[in-house]
Amino acid sequence: MTLSDDFHVFDTTLRDGAQREGINLTVADKLTIARHLDDFGVGFIEGGWPGANPRDTEFFARAADELQLQHAQLVAFGATRRAGGEAATDAQLAALVASGAPVVTLVAKSHDRHVELALRTTLDENLEMVRDSVEYLRAQGRRVFIDCEHFFDGYKANREYALAVVRTAHQAGADVVVLCDTNGGMLPTGVRDIVADVLLETGARLGMHAQDDTGCAVANTLAAVDAGATHVQCTANGYGERVGNANLFPVAAALELKLDRRVLPAGRLAEMTRISHAIAEVVNLTPSTHQPYVGVSAFAHKAGLHASAIKVDPDLYQHTDPALVGNSMRMLVSDMAGRASVELKAKELGYDVSADRETVGRVVDTVKARELQGYTYEAADASFELLLRDEINDNRERFFALESWRAIVEQAADGSQANEATVKLHAKGERIIATGEGNGPVHALDMALRAALERFYPQLAALELVDYKVRILEGEHGTRSQTRVLVTTSNGQDEWSTVGVAENVIGASWQALEDAYTFGLLRAGLEP
Amino acid sequence: MTLSDDFHVFDTTLRDGAQREGINLTVADKLTIARHLDDFGVGFIEGGWPGANPRDTEFFARAADELQLQHAQLVAFGATRRAGGEAATDAQLAALVASGAPVVTLVAKSHDRHVELALRTTLDENLEMVRDSVEYLRAQGRRVFIDCEHFFDGYKANREYALAVVRTAHQAGADVVVLCDTNGGMLPTGVRDIVADVLLETGARLGMHAQDDTGCAVANTLAAVDAGATHVQCTANGYGERVGNANLFPVAAALELKLDRRVLPAGRLAEMTRISHAIAEVVNLTPSTHQPYVGVSAFAHKAGLHASAIKVDPDLYQHTDPALVGNSMRMLVSDMAGRASVELKAKELGYDVSADRETVGRVVDTVKARELQGYTYEAADASFELLLRDEINDNRERFFALESWRAIVEQAADGSQANEATVKLHAKGERIIATGEGNGPVHALDMALRAALERFYPQLAALELVDYKVRILEGEHGTRSQTRVLVTTSNGQDEWSTVGVAENVIGASWQALEDAYTFGLLRAGLEP
Repeated sequence: MTLSDDFHVFDTTLRDGAQREGINLTVADKLTIARHLDDFGVGFIEGGWPGANPRDTEFFARAADELQLQHAQLVAFGATRRAGGEAATDAQLAALVASGAPVVTLVAKSHDRHVELALRTTLDENLEMVRDSVEYLRAQGRRVFIDCEHFFDGYKANREYALAVVRTAHQAGADVVVLCDTNGGMLPTGVRDIVADVLLETGARLGMHAQDDTGCAVANTLAAVDAGATHVQCTANGYGERVGNANLFPVAAALELKLDRRVLPAGRLAEMTRISHAIAEVVNLTPSTHQPYVGVSAFAHKAGLHASAIKVDPDLYQHTDPALVGNSMRMLVSDMAGRASVELKAKELGYDVSADRETVGRVVDTVKARELQGYTYEAADASFELLLRDEINDNRERFFALESWRAIVEQAADGSQANEATVKLHAKGERIIATGEGNGPVHALDMALRAALERFYPQLAALELVDYKVRILEGEHGTRSQTRVLVTTSNGQDEWSTVGVAENVIGASWQALEDAYTFGLLRAGLEP
Repeated sequence: MTLSDDFHVFDTTLRDGAQREGINLTVADKLTIARHLDDFGVGFIEGGWPGANPRDTEFFARAADELQLQHAQLVAFGATRRAGGEAATDAQLAALVASGAPVVTLVAKSHDRHVELALRTTLDENLEMVRDSVEYLRAQGRRVFIDCEHFFDGYKANREYALAVVRTAHQAGADVVVLCDTNGGMLPTGVRDIVADVLLETGARLGMHAQDDTGCAVANTLAAVDAGATHVQCTANGYGERVGNANLFPVAAALELKLDRRVLPAGRLAEMTRISHAIAEVVNLTPSTHQPYVGVSAFAHKAGLHASAIKVDPDLYQHTDPALVGNSMRMLVSDMAGRASVELKAKELGYDVSADRETVGRVVDTVKARELQGYTYEAADASFELLLRDEINDNRERFFALESWRAIVEQAADGSQANEATVKLHAKGERIIATGEGNGPVHALDMALRAALERFYPQLAALELVDYKVRILEGEHGTRSQTRVLVTTSNGQDEWSTVGVAENVIGASWQALEDAYTFGLLRAGLEP
């Protein structure tokens, strides 16, 4: 399906987003992210700066072979030709053409001081560089977008010159002139006024590139659209230099759900949560729990006050239906919440305890007491369900009972490391001692536990630990604090999370593993 | 110093902010946060709901004794009287009066469907509840603010009724009528239009309470101010239910630095970064590295392109002077950046290597190679400095050299846990074997290292581990992945961060500790 060209959602995760502190993308990462962005339905994917960066050159070469984009066009990023040269003989521009990308975004200076101090050329020569570079790329059959770097600061410093850059690019044949708030200091009112003025003065098709330094990147992007911009540059999860860029996901959701503009192919918005998390995994950052629309907390309700009213009508308490963006409402169990939250959460898990006031009271008390010790059930549904079963069944039976464990970790004089763990357990009337080795003490403990139990419960072989998080509580005391471990386990179809808290990381991991495997055996249909 | 009453910065971290998933505040936490907020200079601190929550009742009792607020007034939060009752005999309102707070914020329904479905009373009785409750509290000598819950959704559903609630509160003597975007679905243009209309229609003094569900809470707050609101409700670091509330810090910074409104006592804005981080510590959440103005990444520069230009004039590349908000510019060392970044970072650390092209080249190569293994120097300045010294001095001498280590962690059948570590080291020509115990294996290792070395380096006694972070790299493989440890160490005056990467957490911790203590000894003026 071809998207309408009337409005562009232009993604620059692979170029500007990669500037974020902590992100370091391989070519394979970039190809994977490009597939996710195309799947989401953006119109343009800026892949990097071929020629300037060997990895980006390789990306465009491999993209030509390996990417079958359904919706998006690939964009190469570069700069206007060097001062005093000619576009036709500029090596950097030649590399952009050689990349094979059908669209090129050229960054151009539009702030007079940047031209003089950073570029070290004259204001006239800078205009000439814009004209020459755009005309050259157009002659090579490329569609050209111009990023006017530092545009808003430049407009405030020298409005006439900033407008001259826009006019020059437009007249030379640039399809879109993108106004960049490169340093991110703008607020929405200022953006709207300036975009409206530039549109009136130049008649060029305008785009917006916002950075989030004032916390207003999404709003600044929408303010520009309000003023007539029809091209928005964003990055997945708002990744970008310093604070970050305008976040693609809330921008797309606002346009589609709040402003009634269709900017994505039909049905793609509902993939947003999944795609946001998948991209976070590729860049190796934990998905932000509090990201608008797609965070796991985005539709989570904690307050007891709300919990009772949500029973009446959930739509009274959510600004949009979470299913529209692929997310879902969650009730949180916490000591701030009361009986109503526990009842709702139990119902969500398939237990109707609304008639049993005493059980609900015991669950609330236990949750309060354990949260005081550092446990958290908000992120550990499976541990909460086991706690609930304990209270409903008046202390459920166990698949296995621990006697003791020991882990030994050592590095020998030759630098080699060894990790060994021994567990002593009771299961089905037998006492079992088993030892496991691993590449860390928790892994060794996991191996020992599996070695001890797989004879009794072969179902454990299908379970895999897919995520393991460690949190030091009361961080001021460093290593002397309580340690909380959250483990996510998969059986290939479903995932569940469990929690453990102890002074040391291995004790906490043991608890989380015990819950994880107990839950997995229950999920496999076994009864203790 | 008394603040002008013309504009209110109203903080609700202790009430609405505490609804954030993962936050659970003790009374002592609340008192500490109140002191930080007062130190920052907000006009009002909403402390909680006395009467509804025993912890909040205790907070107000202790606050009366223990808090000496310099700038802020304490505010009690509650609801209008119950339907069908009388304010004068309402137990909940009596508890608000009994709290002793000079100001009360009352939440009132302003959305017709919420009145009928959640409150289960008539539209007229709801107006009567507002009038009666406000008049009663005014007669008790309290200043009253009204939070119109779900105001914007209510205005869209039934504008006349929403306006009637505002008029009723205003006429009954409420000082400020706060328009709440409770579900957080608004965008700035809509907020500005509605606030302007309400102001025109009612003449009431208006406030704004924004939630961040569209990612526009800061912009929505500023849009309301633009339209005439003179009271803004915010929370520290944007903590709050679901996605969060309008973040106090970027709102205050925008008002002071971008819109030229003085809303804080003189000199307090420069404390913002410190106070933001201090509050994050109290609530036990890692400070957001990418928070506008106050995040450690907020003024961090990575791109090689920028790095060279920043040498010319830093102000070309930052939207405001970071010192104004108590933050500072940072150059990041990363394999995306090149020689210019390494030179600038070295200069920041006090090493002039600009003339030594060969050393800079070796540093760039080493950083690239180690980042590939999972190290990160962006967050570990001290480890980078040691790496730099290695290259400058052609492999510096060591204070000590490791032979081997071993850690044993066990839980006995009685449930007791023991952690023991043994290290074998060489220092000053001697071979040392020492064993330490701790409440976790890393702590035991730390104790063993100190036991081994304190005889040679008594300066180690002054060093304390103040933060310890564990990150599992390539999270898809769970416990089988590489583990990165970041340690922050303090000598009582300065803090520094070091990094270690290994398959197991203890090996990674060992590396980070080795760097931490080496750096501490260098900082103490010792030479190996």
